[in-house]
Amino acid sequence: MKEWFLDSCALPDPDMAELSRQRQLQLTKPPGSLGRLEALAITLSSMQGKLAPAVDRVEIAVFAGDHGIANEAVSAFPQAVTVEMVKNFVRGGAAISVMARQIKAGLTVINAGTCSEKAFGAPVVDRPIAFGTGNITTEAAMTYEQCIEALALGKSIVDGYESEPELVIGGEMGIGNTSSATALAAAFGVSTAAKLVGPGTGLNSEGVSHKLKMIEMALARVGKESNTISLLAELGGFEIAALTGFYLRAAQRGITILVDGFISTVAAQAACRINEGVRDWLVFSHISAEPGHQLVLQALSASPLLALEMRLGEGSGAAVTVSLLRSACALQNEMATFAEAGVSDG
Amino acid sequence: MKEWFLDSCALPDPDMAELSRQRQLQLTKPPGSLGRLEALAITLSSMQGKLAPAVDRVEIAVFAGDHGIANEAVSAFPQAVTVEMVKNFVRGGAAISVMARQIKAGLTVINAGTCSEKAFGAPVVDRPIAFGTGNITTEAAMTYEQCIEALALGKSIVDGYESEPELVIGGEMGIGNTSSATALAAAFGVSTAAKLVGPGTGLNSEGVSHKLKMIEMALARVGKESNTISLLAELGGFEIAALTGFYLRAAQRGITILVDGFISTVAAQAACRINEGVRDWLVFSHISAEPGHQLVLQALSASPLLALEMRLGEGSGAAVTVSLLRSACALQNEMATFAEAGVSDG
Repeated sequence: MKEWFLDSCALPDPDMAELSRQRQLQLTKPPGSLGRLEALAITLSSMQGKLAPAVDRVEIAVFAGDHGIANEAVSAFPQAVTVEMVKNFVRGGAAISVMARQIKAGLTVINAGTCSEKAFGAPVVDRPIAFGTGNITTEAAMTYEQCIEALALGKSIVDGYESEPELVIGGEMGIGNTSSATALAAAFGVSTAAKLVGPGTGLNSEGVSHKLKMIEMALARVGKESNTISLLAELGGFEIAALTGFYLRAAQRGITILVDGFISTVAAQAACRINEGVRDWLVFSHISAEPGHQLVLQALSASPLLALEMRLGEGSGAAVTVSLLRSACALQNEMATFAEAGVSDG
Repeated sequence: MKEWFLDSCALPDPDMAELSRQRQLQLTKPPGSLGRLEALAITLSSMQGKLAPAVDRVEIAVFAGDHGIANEAVSAFPQAVTVEMVKNFVRGGAAISVMARQIKAGLTVINAGTCSEKAFGAPVVDRPIAFGTGNITTEAAMTYEQCIEALALGKSIVDGYESEPELVIGGEMGIGNTSSATALAAAFGVSTAAKLVGPGTGLNSEGVSHKLKMIEMALARVGKESNTISLLAELGGFEIAALTGFYLRAAQRGITILVDGFISTVAAQAACRINEGVRDWLVFSHISAEPGHQLVLQALSASPLLALEMRLGEGSGAAVTVSLLRSACALQNEMATFAEAGVSDG
């Protein structure tokens, strides 16, 4: 039986891209003078098959999971923070909660596998695959079957949206997950762990050296494995695999994906490796301060819109970027043409 | 009699900056992880003297003026476009009109000296200093007295705001005004005209070479003059001088100024040269595609927030940036602290 995630992704409409490009040339401005906002409007037209694209309905899904490697002193924060932050997300006090309100986006918080054996209860979506992953320095993060389950969890979030979102943002929370993402990026061949590793939530240089050793131990354990799902199972996290499934399904349904920071971008890369059609649906929001992010972005030939030195995760950088997409749409849809305004063309 | 523009500017509040910095450290995120949005919130706190800054009330003023040098083939568009675009601004079809609606900002369009001898009528503010400047290759753009009048026009716009804006944006429209701004930046010692000159609305390389010759002719005519107001009169434009006065007055009144692109940044530099306290009130929105912009930004030690390859003017790049400032405020004001949320500190 063919797995769902191998089904074709939707295809952006090249004819609509061309119509959109022509419209940009007729608007009352020097051609090209809106810079990347023009390219963005054209991309959104192409994705939505509409000359007048919109990014009104936005859904944010934040996946949380705990990591066995958190016991190896790879983070500046204790593991308990994952569970504490899940509560903060739904109470409205986290950065992503504030941003979701500001941009009027839906916010779904999914317990994909935190250490909490007790259910959080609504509005958290309690779907833990297990109570934290294995410690990847010595064992697999999860079984292959659990990874398939996590991918399906991500899919189910997209399929469950009743709002017909024009844009989705995936976010993540998981103490220790930059270690996991760094190991994955190295295993995907982006670069060496030494070049990819960074301070995450705020390690000092000694901490980063130790973190690198832990990541290299995990990579040595896994050896030459190259199958993406196997690597996600060996080195990933429940939230990372769920995010991968979330991206895969959004691309199949033709929904624009606004990618957040380092960990989200690694999940996006995993999704592209599993099904290359995902790439067509990715818009990259920002480049974070985590050094590995730039390398993963390069591997995906991605040019993010913002460079604000953010490094928070949760989907926060993507949420901050939504207003730029809305500006791109408003300009494309509401500006007068030279003919309409009686302005002389160049 | 001391001229109004030499009166002291307001002073941001360093104690409030410190309180704001402390609050950022208590919010439920790794310290520094909101990157430049943290610095922005702290700056706005300091400017507004409030721990909870806001950028709700925004006023945009677009100053239009014509340039004698437009007859020297220095622009990809005919001079008539200045007047046509003024009409487009108030009819709602220009980029800045669309953006003003999107960010719910007030928009004032000022005829500071276009070629139109007929008044535009309300809502345009008809205050032409003259009907276009002199051709700076052979004569002064305006008299010293006209320059003082243009500065006062900019002041009067700030003084006329009844909305008590928390933020102002100055924009400009004037075919030929990148030539004027380039000449000013060179005269201010930013760099040589050859390094500052660029395609403006879209000249080809031959056009840029010709434009450079015209700018160098103007600079040779002016010689070693170094007084900023004299230089504005010799090489500037009515809209550029009015923008300079607008910035000067906003800084005196302690209103945050969000600076737009190349021409606006040159006007901001002029304002700082006239009264150095202006610098404290400038937030730089974006770096444009016009090559001279980077050099003028460097001269002002400015780090703009966005780099979207925009080069439209009108205040459009600044307007696109307002949402980032609003995000910075919302995060600072609405996020829970570690104590409030019961989240473990790092």
